[in-house]
Formats: sequence, C-alpha cells, structure tokens
Amino acid sequence: MRIAVMNCNTNSTMTDLIAKSARSVARPGTEILGIQPAWGPESAEGWYDSFITAAAGLDRLVKLTDEIDGLVMAGFGEHGREGARELLDVPVLDITEAAAMLALPLGQRYGVITTLDRSIVQIEESLRTAGLADHCIAICATDLGVLELEDDPVRTHRAFVEAGRQALEQGAEVLCLGCAGMAGLEESVREELGVPVIDGVKAAVGVVESLVSLGLTTSKIGGFASPRAKSRLGWPITSTTGHLK
Amino acid sequence: MRIAVMNCNTNSTMTDLIAKSARSVARPGTEILGIQPAWGPESAEGWYDSFITAAAGLDRLVKLTDEIDGLVMAGFGEHGREGARELLDVPVLDITEAAAMLALPLGQRYGVITTLDRSIVQIEESLRTAGLADHCIAICATDLGVLELEDDPVRTHRAFVEAGRQALEQGAEVLCLGCAGMAGLEESVREELGVPVIDGVKAAVGVVESLVSLGLTTSKIGGFASPRAKSRLGWPITSTTGHLK
Amino acid sequence: MRIAVMNCNTNSTMTDLIAKSARSVARPGTEILGIQPAWGPESAEGWYDSFITAAAGLDRLVKLTDEIDGLVMAGFGEHGREGARELLDVPVLDITEAAAMLALPLGQRYGVITTLDRSIVQIEESLRTAGLADHCIAICATDLGVLELEDDPVRTHRAFVEAGRQALEQGAEVLCLGCAGMAGLEESVREELGVPVIDGVKAAVGVVESLVSLGLTTSKIGGFASPRAKSRLGWPITSTTGHLK
Amino acid sequence: MRIAVMNCNTNSTMTDLIAKSARSVARPGTEILGIQPAWGPESAEGWYDSFITAAAGLDRLVKLTDEIDGLVMAGFGEHGREGARELLDVPVLDITEAAAMLALPLGQRYGVITTLDRSIVQIEESLRTAGLADHCIAICATDLGVLELEDDPVRTHRAFVEAGRQALEQGAEVLCLGCAGMAGLEESVREELGVPVIDGVKAAVGVVESLVSLGLTTSKIGGFASPRAKSRLGWPITSTTGHLK
Amino acid sequence: MRIAVMNCNTNSTMTDLIAKSARSVARPGTEILGIQPAWGPESAEGWYDSFITAAAGLDRLVKLTDEIDGLVMAGFGEHGREGARELLDVPVLDITEAAAMLALPLGQRYGVITTLDRSIVQIEESLRTAGLADHCIAICATDLGVLELEDDPVRTHRAFVEAGRQALEQGAEVLCLGCAGMAGLEESVREELGVPVIDGVKAAVGVVESLVSLGLTTSKIGGFASPRAKSRLGWPITSTTGHLK
Amino acid sequence: MRIAVMNCNTNSTMTDLIAKSARSVARPGTEILGIQPAWGPESAEGWYDSFITAAAGLDRLVKLTDEIDGLVMAGFGEHGREGARELLDVPVLDITEAAAMLALPLGQRYGVITTLDRSIVQIEESLRTAGLADHCIAICATDLGVLELEDDPVRTHRAFVEAGRQALEQGAEVLCLGCAGMAGLEESVREELGVPVIDGVKAAVGVVESLVSLGLTTSKIGGFASPRAKSRLGWPITSTTGHLK
Repeated sequence: MRIAVMNCNTNSTMTDLIAKSARSVARPGTEILGIQPAWGPESAEGWYDSFITAAAGLDRLVKLTDEIDGLVMAGFGEHGREGARELLDVPVLDITEAAAMLALPLGQRYGVITTLDRSIVQIEESLRTAGLADHCIAICATDLGVLELEDDPVRTHRAFVEAGRQALEQGAEVLCLGCAGMAGLEESVREELGVPVIDGVKAAVGVVESLVSLGLTTSKIGGFASPRAKSRLGWPITSTTGHLK
Repeated sequence: MRIAVMNCNTNSTMTDLIAKSARSVARPGTEILGIQPAWGPESAEGWYDSFITAAAGLDRLVKLTDEIDGLVMAGFGEHGREGARELLDVPVLDITEAAAMLALPLGQRYGVITTLDRSIVQIEESLRTAGLADHCIAICATDLGVLELEDDPVRTHRAFVEAGRQALEQGAEVLCLGCAGMAGLEESVREELGVPVIDGVKAAVGVVESLVSLGLTTSKIGGFASPRAKSRLGWPITSTTGHLK
Repeated sequence: MRIAVMNCNTNSTMTDLIAKSARSVARPGTEILGIQPAWGPESAEGWYDSFITAAAGLDRLVKLTDEIDGLVMAGFGEHGREGARELLDVPVLDITEAAAMLALPLGQRYGVITTLDRSIVQIEESLRTAGLADHCIAICATDLGVLELEDDPVRTHRAFVEAGRQALEQGAEVLCLGCAGMAGLEESVREELGVPVIDGVKAAVGVVESLVSLGLTTSKIGGFASPRAKSRLGWPITSTTGHLK
Repeated sequence: MRIAVMNCNTNSTMTDLIAKSARSVARPGTEILGIQPAWGPESAEGWYDSFITAAAGLDRLVKLTDEIDGLVMAGFGEHGREGARELLDVPVLDITEAAAMLALPLGQRYGVITTLDRSIVQIEESLRTAGLADHCIAICATDLGVLELEDDPVRTHRAFVEAGRQALEQGAEVLCLGCAGMAGLEESVREELGVPVIDGVKAAVGVVESLVSLGLTTSKIGGFASPRAKSRLGWPITSTTGHLK
Repeated sequence: MRIAVMNCNTNSTMTDLIAKSARSVARPGTEILGIQPAWGPESAEGWYDSFITAAAGLDRLVKLTDEIDGLVMAGFGEHGREGARELLDVPVLDITEAAAMLALPLGQRYGVITTLDRSIVQIEESLRTAGLADHCIAICATDLGVLELEDDPVRTHRAFVEAGRQALEQGAEVLCLGCAGMAGLEESVREELGVPVIDGVKAAVGVVESLVSLGLTTSKIGGFASPRAKSRLGWPITSTTGHLK
Repeated sequence: MRIAVMNCNTNSTMTDLIAKSARSVARPGTEILGIQPAWGPESAEGWYDSFITAAAGLDRLVKLTDEIDGLVMAGFGEHGREGARELLDVPVLDITEAAAMLALPLGQRYGVITTLDRSIVQIEESLRTAGLADHCIAICATDLGVLELEDDPVRTHRAFVEAGRQALEQGAEVLCLGCAGMAGLEESVREELGVPVIDGVKAAVGVVESLVSLGLTTSKIGGFASPRAKSRLGWPITSTTGHLK
C-alpha cells in the first residue's frame, strides 16, 4: 500500500525527516510518500500558522496525482484533518490523535510534551475534537520553537525530559511527543524517564496501515461527505512560487 | 469607530447583505467596512470549505490597509477566528459566538438553526472551542444550502420555522440563526414561533462595539500572542485572480 | 433607553458608585437608574447573604414603578438572576455572566478575581448555571471582604494584582473583576499585569444595550415564563424599615 | 434526636402532610418538627418562587428557637439549601438530593417526575450543584401544578405513571418523585411501573438520621462557614403577617 | 433487619474489625453479618486484586445461605458492586459511594484519603461509575499499603492527616477515609483537621438501613436485572481451600 | 510476534471463531494464540458475568506459559482489562477500545451495536474508563443474546442492520460491532448501511501489532505497576474442572 505522509509546513528538511521516520516503522510493502504544502510557514506555531497550513495542506492534497491508500498528517495539534477527510475516501489520521490513541492503553492518563506554551490550548482542542482528550492530564511546553528543536539535540532532549517530568508529576503515565520527525527523541526520553514515549508519526503509520488492511474508509454519510460541487474562486492556489514536493 | 465585517466566502452579494445588516444595527458613529476574501468558495459548507475560508480570511486581513477598531467574522461555525485574534490586537468576534452569547441570558437553553446536516457537529465544535456550548441543546438543519437561502424567501422561512420548532421541542427557548445576511428572517421566525431569534451578524456588531467602547483588546500573553516572525513561503497569497472587496 | 442597575446589597454608597460606573460607559441616550433592595445585607458574601439578596432584589423589582428597558444585576456570583427573568420581559443580565461573555473572545481561558475564598465555588456554580463556566480556568481570592475593598485602594489594588497573577499562572489570559463599582481598579490591574481586565458592571451595560437595541426580550415559553398567579403570603415585603432607593 | 422538616411554601396543609410523611419513616426516638416559612408563596413553581422561598426559609431558620439535630428542606429543586448550611452546624439535606442519593445504588440511571415543564432545568441545576446530576437521565413533567396534585388523586397517579413511563423509555431504571407530601403516591407508581420509586421526604429523613447518628456536622472551613457578622437591614423580616408554624 | 457486611479480602482480622465497626453504628434491631470471600488476596491494592475480589465476593454471595435484607461491600474503590446488584434484590451499597453520599451535603467539595498512589484513578473511576465523582476534588495517597495501616496507628494517623491536609489545600471541605475498619481513625483525623471525616463502612450501614426501612429494592428492569440462566463452567468456585466466614 | 487473543467466555467454538478472525487480519509473521478462561460463563451478558470473566481471564493469564508479545481481550464491554495491564508488560487491548479507536478517524461520531439492552450502560462505562466515550453517540441493542447470534445468521444480520440504522439516526457515522467472532457480519452490515463497520477483534489485532512493532509496553509507574507481592488465598484457582485452551 502507499501512504502519503504530509508535513504541515514548507520545511523540506523536516519533510524528509518525517518521511524517513515513517519509513522506519512501515510494514514491508508499504510505500511512504513524503509530501508538503507548496506554500505556508516554515513551521507551524499557533492558530494563525495552523489555519494557513490547513488550507495549504488541502491545496496540496487537491493537486495530488499519486494514488494513495491512506494519509498521515504530520502536524501536532494543527488544523485541516477534517477537511482532508471530506476530500478523500481513504483513511486520514493526524499525528495528534494517533499518538493519543496508542497512549491510551499503555497508562491510565497520558501527557503531551509540546514546543511553546502558546500551543497548549490548541492541542487540547485538537484532542477534544478528535474525541481523545478525556485522559489527557497534562500538556507541558519546552519553550523551544519548532525550528530550534534540531539546533541542539542535547538541549532538546533535556527540555523534553524536563517537560515530561512535569507531566508525570501531574499524573501522566505515558507521554506523547508533540512534534514530528525528531529522530531518536522518543527513545532517549523513554530511557531517562522510564515510561512509554510515543512518536505521533510512527503511531499514525501503524494505525493507518491497520485501517487500510481492514478495508476501512472514511464515512461519507455525514460531516465527512465529499465537498459539494461549487465555484471556489482562485482555488486551488495556482501561482505561488512554492515548490511541490 | 470602524468595524470590519468580513464575509467568509467570495460571494459579493452576500458580503453586501451582511454589511447592510451590520449597518442597520450599528451605533451612530460606527462605520461598517464590508470585506470578503480574495479567493475561496462562494459559500462555506463543511470542514473543507471552512478551512479554505479560514486561510482566505486571514490572507484578506493581512492585506487590510484600513485602520479598524474591531472585526466581525461572518461565517457561522467557520474556522479562522483564533488566527485573526493572533494577527490583530483589536477585538475579534465571530457570529457563532456572538449569537450564542446573546442567546444565553434570554432563555435557559438555546438552539441553532443551520443549513445542512453536515454542519451540525462543526457548529457544535465551534461553540465548544468558544466556551459557549454548554447551553446549546439542539442544532437543527433546514436541508437548504447556503446559496439556496436567497432563492425562495418563503421556502427559507418555512424551513427555518420547521427546524426551529424541532429545536424548541428538544428544549430550546431561544434560537440562533446559523447563517448570515438574511434580511428579515429573524423577525419572521420570531413572529411565527413566539421566541427570541438572534441574528449573529447583528449580535456581533453590538458586542464588538461594547468591547471597543470599553477599550478592551485581545490578550497577547498566551495563545493569541502575535504570530512569530518567520518565513511563510508564498504567503500572503499573491497571484490569485480574485477581486479584493 | 432606560436601564436599571441594581446593587445586590443595601449599601447606598456602593449603589451610587455602581450607577456612576454604569453611566460612565452608557451610550448617549441611555439613562441609568441606580437601585438597591430595601432590605438585606450591607454586602453579599456567601450563600446565606446571596439568597437574602436574591429575594430582596426580586422584592425591589416587584415594586419598581419606573418603566425600564433592561436590567443589570450588580452582584458578582449572587442569586436571583433567573427569578428576575421570570418577572420581567426586558433583558436581564448579571455582572458575572457579562464579564465572562466579554472575556471569552479576548483570550483562550479567563480567570476571576474575587473577594473571599468562600465565594469561589458559588461563583463557579453561577457561571455554570449561566452556561459560561467552560473556559473559566481559575477563580482566585484576595481575602478582602466586600466592605474592605474601599478602605485602602492601594491594598485593594495590590491584592487584586496578586490574585490576578495567580490566575495567570494557572492559565488565564483575561481577568474578570469579581466585584462591583471599584472605580479605576480594572485599569490599574490591567496596566500592571498587561492583560485585559473586565469590570462586570461596564460589560453588562454594553450587552444589555445591545439586547435592547436589537429588540430582544426574554423568552417566555419555558423556564422564564411569567410567575404563575397565586397567593404569596406577605409578599412583597411590606413593613421593613429599609429605605427604597 | 429532633429533626426539623421545613416545607418551602406557606401552605400549612402541605406542611402537615410532609411532617406526617416524615414521621411515618422516622426511627423510634426521632422527633419530627414540621415547620414552614412565615411568608412567601403557597406553592413554589419556578425560579421566582424558588428564590422567595429560599429567603423565607432562611428567615424561618434564623428565628427557630427549638434545638434541632438536623434539617430536611422539603422543596424539590428549590433554593436555599447552601444558605441553611452556612447558618446551621447540624446536617442539612434537601429532598432533591436525598431522593437522588437513594436512587443511585438502585439502578444504573434514574429519572425524576416533576410537576411543570418550567421546573425541569431548575431541578437539573439543583442536582448539578448538589453533585448528583451525572446519572440523572430524564426529568419528565406531569403538567400538574403543585396545588393541583391533591385535587384528584387518581389524575395525579395517572399523570405520574405517564411521566414515569417516559423517563423509563429514556433509560431511567429508578424514579424520584419531584414533589413532597403525596401520601401513597410512590407506592402506587412503583406498583404500576414495577420499578423503585423514591419519595424525597422519606429519603431525606433517613439520610439525616444517619448523619446525626454518626456525629457528622457541616464543614465550617469553606463555603459553608458561618455567615459573617454584619448589618443586614430589616433582616430577619419582622412585620409580615404570616403565621409561624 | 439483617445486613451482610462483606470484606473484599480474605483477611479475617479485617473482616472482624469491619463487622465490629458496622455494629457500632447499626440501629437497634439490625443484625450485622460479617462475611468475606473464600479466596483471593489478603488485601486489595490495584486493578488486578480488585477484579479478583470482585469475583471472589460474588462467589461468596452465590453461596450465602443466610437471609439478608441488605449488603454492604467494604472495599474502597473495589469492583463487583454492580454484579452484586444483579445477583440480589436487596439494596447493595459499597463504602466508596456511601462515603461520598454522606460527604456531599456537608461541604461544597470532598476529598478522599487512600492508601497507595496506584489506587487514585481506580477510585476516581469507581466514583464516576457510581455517579458521585462530580464534587470529588482530590484523592490523596498516604503511601501506606492496606496491611501496613494496622501496624503503627500513630504513623497511620499522621499519614492520613498529612494526605487530608493536601486534599483540603486542593479545595476539599470534607474527607472520606478510603479504607475500612480503622477504629478511631476518622475521629482522630477529624479532631486534628477540624473538618468532617467519613468512614465508609459506617456511612454504608446507615444508608442501607434507610433503603431497607423504606422498602426499596434494586431495580430489575435494566442493567441490574437478574443474571440470565446459563452454563457457568466451574462456577461457583468449588474446590479452593479457603475457609468461609 | 505472538499475540494471544483471549475469548472472555468458556465457549470454545467462539474462541475458535475469534482466533480465526484474528488470524484473517494478522500480519505475516504474527502468530495468533487463541485462549479462553478455564472457568466461567459460556457467554458474558451483564455485570455479574463480566466480573466473573474478568477474574477467570486473569486466572488464565497467570497460568499462561507461552511467551507472548501482546494480548487482545475479546469481550466487548467486559471487565478485566486494567488487571491484565498490571499483570503483563506487553501491550493489552480490549476489543471495545480498539473498535472505538479505529472508528474515531472515520466519522464525526460513532455508534455501537450490542446484543442486549442490559449491556448498554456497561459498554458506555467501559468506553469512558478507556477514555474513548466522548464521540460515542449511540449504543443500540439487537435484543439477541450472545449465544443466539450464531443460531440464525440472517436474523442476526437483520437485527444488526436495524440497530445500526437506529444509531445512524441518532447521529452515528461509523458503527462498531459489539460482539466478537461473527464472520462476515461487518461486511454485510457495511454493505447494507453504506457506512464503515468495525469488528473489534480485527481492530485490536492491528493496534496491538502496531504497539509491539514500535516497542511500546505498558507503563509501570502508576496504576498499571505490577501487582504487589502478597498472599492471595486459593489463587490462581486450582481445582475447577474447566479445560484450559
């Protein structure tokens, strides 16, 4: 099967890392197609960026010519998910919900480690809209921006361990990494804190593979019915200078 | 003061109606600036459209050269609200939350009349994210698309009365119209059903005027802090063929 | 239009301050009628006082001979609101819900600064009954009684700043002042903490003016239908020695 | 021990019936003191009446000269409960919460049969404030006013059976009677519907007796601390013409 | 009447203490029958033990030859309660819910003091399933295992006071002891902390006596209908070496 | 990897069907080990059966000599799940939560089709304890007992379609089959109703495989820490006549 894994931002290094991470856990026979929007922010931090990436991601999906069997949206707490479900029939999973799903059976309550304080409520709302917020007991920030994560792996590790520890003190028994494509981070945090740590990209690949294997597709009778035919002026976006990947 | 009232779609007839409706209730001295996105769907129905209009609306706001004192976002249940709050300092209100706010003190529980079934959960989530869903006891659909509302006013009236009646039977004591710019509809439904009926555009104008009068502005210490400086490839959207209004 | 602003207690100095505060924000053409109960406590602190002021306020309203277009009930977290809605057709708003309403669009979560610890749960319940508790993330007390607020403005300012800071630490991005008639307090706290601070009296005046302007009145089909005709022994209270104001 | 059972209205026939009902289930050695407010409505129906009875009941309690060991407040869904808890040290229970408490262990979900539609939300809020609303799955009205209940016992029985049946269809497995002093009604409904039916007065007597036996009293460290010393103008009410009972 | 009080574990010393405690508060004429499972852990700590004690308790009840009028299940937060309600017609109450019930009217929010951290969520879920979790604001652990409680009464007292203090700081106004059969502990904690402290066994005896007195029995129309007739291989358990008490 | 799939009852035909169903979707290289308790009911219907199967399942697991990498518990809405998580380090998933997990991304709200009315609340509580109840909008019963499902496949199909239709009318967009081992049922219902239908056994196999592949194991720092060492009288159950499978 072929799974598209879409980075939410236009940072192609990150797109590559995410695709690589996805490939590292994909089943034999699963092809991972790493894609990213043609326009939009180089990192998504906050509601403003999030809504831009939502449309940019949908724009990318409209233009997608490859046949795919499933889609992973690799923005933690970012918008667009339900729009992609309307657009596509194949299963769509974002890494926020995938991480939460796999966290649920591993502990009584889970926590999320995110980048900036400003994203905490946004993540909470994303989990709530996904129906997965009930057992989320803490969302703790590292105060590192998305693009700072790669700068200094040791600092990133330490910041994640510190935020993770705060979540554990508040009652979390499992942790979700609220970012994408950080090679090795979940192992190093898991090792230091002694609790399961979940990477959303890897989680999402597994769950989408299961949905595809079972022949399950998005319900088309309600809120995720295909978009209505209508005029959408200037859409999809045609003349930005972004490169398609 | 000057209040921008932004239609969420690219239908300029609707933009005009919305601005006219806003003007009909604005205080003396309030100037209403009717605007609309330069691109995007002619009507917003469902998550896919909603995320496009969210980005298109933000794109429009980035390019806004007029000084404004407040913003009304005239899409019922549509996205983008929190992004606009990041972008601007002035108060931002969408008609979904404004209608709900004014409904709360008028009855124990309120209902919403919307266009299509597919929007019910989306509106519910919008109200929840706005912190106003607790007393919403029913969201009932008319099965008329946004663009069909203007076609046949009598049919529209009848469909809204019918959906309103369903909401009352489920316990609503006040009704919110889940659409924008329908001249006279709230009066005719109110008359027939004998309960308060709230038009979100009119409600929002009043609440924004109050916020502006009191010198209140959006909090910039948390989730609505200004967007971070960063590269946003191809943004704002430059080369679509849409007309700015 | 004429708006009655009813202090919940029998302290006429406070009634005057509240009316003055209301007048300071009323639209041109709005007349503010400051009233207070003829009997009851000089300040409302706790459930016992609250239920006395609820009945005393209703008693005052029954005897009201002035025509009014709307009512503001100026007791933060106090009871009686829904009873006034039964009694009157015109819009009724209490300052608890008005402050919360205006807080919602300005930040992701809001906090309330109240006087005494003992009022925290009562305020929480008042917000819940009003359908506005969802985004209230902290209610913090100053440990100053209602009548102590006026004694020493500097101490009051410092106590509110301190309690406000606690609320911000718990995630609030906007603050509501849980008291009435404190001239200048919201400005001084706003200045020191750098977040929007909302005075309930001023908020309520604006929202009621909007409701009145839109011709909206209380729903009479359900829980706020007019009180049933019946014998109410010794009611309204006739022989207390209180002065009507 | 001596338990005061306070009718919330000024209908002395009802007060007698309530006291009689309480006595029918009191343990040997428990003295039941039937009391009622000196003023207020002859029946409580809706928020307006409820707030009057709350103050009138507190007024009655302030003047109570008898030593009591516990208090039952016999108004279903009526206010005042938390005020009495401030005023007194002895356990205070209202029949709304008592009925719900005993309903919980007898079935997975319970329903309430009330008099008028207008009381449904008020009862829901009363149960929520008492912390007992979670398992309440239906509140169904008979459309009989409080004073009509006694008129025609057969009609009353039939109306309660009909409303009870509606509650069962919605998932209730146990029923609470939302009224006070209706001799024999819970037996006749129980017989016809084949489910446990709980009378709040009887329930409350048992629970208060248990609290008293265990030496438990109201917590005085938080919201139910004794009312603060202060001037309460014209309170307690001195010159109404009501008779104390 | 005869009330069975069933210890959830196989520790007969504890069974005796629990029965003694129950007898100390039972009404004259109430006979307390202390029983325990024939097999299972000597103390219940965590989900694994809890599910074993649930079945072991049901096994004990199936074999019960004594006529009983009510059942108290003396495991705090342990499972089995709803199964016993299916099996029996007489009222069944567990000490978790009984303590919570009596706590509700005594303070605005209550706390629970439990033994080990690992039980916190389990107790929370038990209260939720019982419909009584809404007002539970804190569950604090002493870090003493069940069997350590008896070892050193002074240490136990101190640990409970310390955990109780934590609960009060989080907003509790009443405390429930999350254990069974600790003679004198609720008095000593109550004395030191100055708040009501509730022992679940004593609470449960009183509530069950009330239910029995009122002739109330478990609803048999829904989830607690009698178990279906069917083959249950090897059940009840026949050949364990446990002694029946 | 080797995954144990444990039927909750002692019906070996059903155990075989469940294992077969699991094998039909397992990845190449996954070995499915079908097991069942040595004692307990031939079908689990209601709380009483559920608690027996919980202990019987744990008893089976204690005695399990095979090395396993993950466990699927194949009882829909049945207890024991959290106990198994204490006992084992490997991932444990029950079919209730697995079905819900895969339903979430496929529709805005999901419904469950169960056997008997009596199980509805039990399933609701199971989903809530698993943190997955938020989006469950309907649980509808077929009125067929577990053992009747196999009798007449046409009747079963029709009953599931009918209950599914009810769930869709209440707002479900995806359906979960609340039973185990019904070959072909999800396909036939999916075909007739045109919505995704999820079989919990198949869902659980996929999710457990993902957890195992990612090297994730149960958190041992909180509520799922290994059971404490202690005397457990007569446990595991030694002398029942049941056959181990």
